[in-house]
Amino acid sequence: MLTPEEAANIEVADFGLNDLERTGLQLVVYVNTKRCCAKELVLFPHQTCPEHRHPHVNGQPGKEETFRCRMGTVYLYVEGEPTAMPAVTPPAGDYTVRHEIVLHPGEQYTIMPNVLHWFQAGPEGAVVSEFSTRSTDEHDVFTDKRLQRATVVADSKD
Amino acid sequence: MLTPEEAANIEVADFGLNDLERTGLQLVVYVNTKRCCAKELVLFPHQTCPEHRHPHVNGQPGKEETFRCRMGTVYLYVEGEPTAMPAVTPPAGDYTVRHEIVLHPGEQYTIMPNVLHWFQAGPEGAVVSEFSTRSTDEHDVFTDKRLQRATVVADSKD
Repeated sequence: MLTPEEAANIEVADFGLNDLERTGLQLVVYVNTKRCCAKELVLFPHQTCPEHRHPHVNGQPGKEETFRCRMGTVYLYVEGEPTAMPAVTPPAGDYTVRHEIVLHPGEQYTIMPNVLHWFQAGPEGAVVSEFSTRSTDEHDVFTDKRLQRATVVADSKD
Repeated sequence: MLTPEEAANIEVADFGLNDLERTGLQLVVYVNTKRCCAKELVLFPHQTCPEHRHPHVNGQPGKEETFRCRMGTVYLYVEGEPTAMPAVTPPAGDYTVRHEIVLHPGEQYTIMPNVLHWFQAGPEGAVVSEFSTRSTDEHDVFTDKRLQRATVVADSKD
């Protein structure tokens, strides 16, 4: 359940590609202090959050995040041994990591700082809780250099 | 939704009072790394988590936590101006803070390190998501010196 203020401030990230149905993410940020952050991520069916990492900045460790699947299925790809037959194909663009982790509701995975990752929802879409250290989107490093983490706040009157 | 392993490891904290229905807490810990932590807290109707604080330890800032109410009502009391007519009464014991914050589903509050706090569920019980920095229960300081954060892991065969 969201407060009216939260519902009016759902973030929509299209990463600058203007192809939201394929590449993008919808987010509700519950809290983001200097030390910790919690969000809900909502993905459309087959929507992909593109490959990126959270680098160390000014000697401070980068963002660490745990993804816990709540609804649907999430196909998460991280650095490591490439999976021989990955379940999904990324959209056009630069994707380099292929170690597959499949998350069903109640399953989770922790991504340490600076580890490349991307994820795609299954055919039902997905809801994912993210528990992390402070979120500083402006420091995210995308593999595909066309991308940026520009956020558009959805207008609830649309 | 919980994994079978999580369901078999629900923590029951009675804080050493052996009076769980009145003073206690049930917890599922999703993740607790060096930097961040997420839990679900479940409270019986009118059950109270007793007054405590998370002190700074060895020059490191104490635990910061955000409580987000998911189900039921939570009556949270923190340092600050005492509320004239608090909604609930704590159980017998040492309770010193009376600044009331009422959380309904979708509402949340962030407790900074070293701030005394306690909370009680309303008549329907409550489910509360906790988003925080690392959880180190052994450092918690209880106002009532009889109390301790001894954890008993529920045996699913009971």
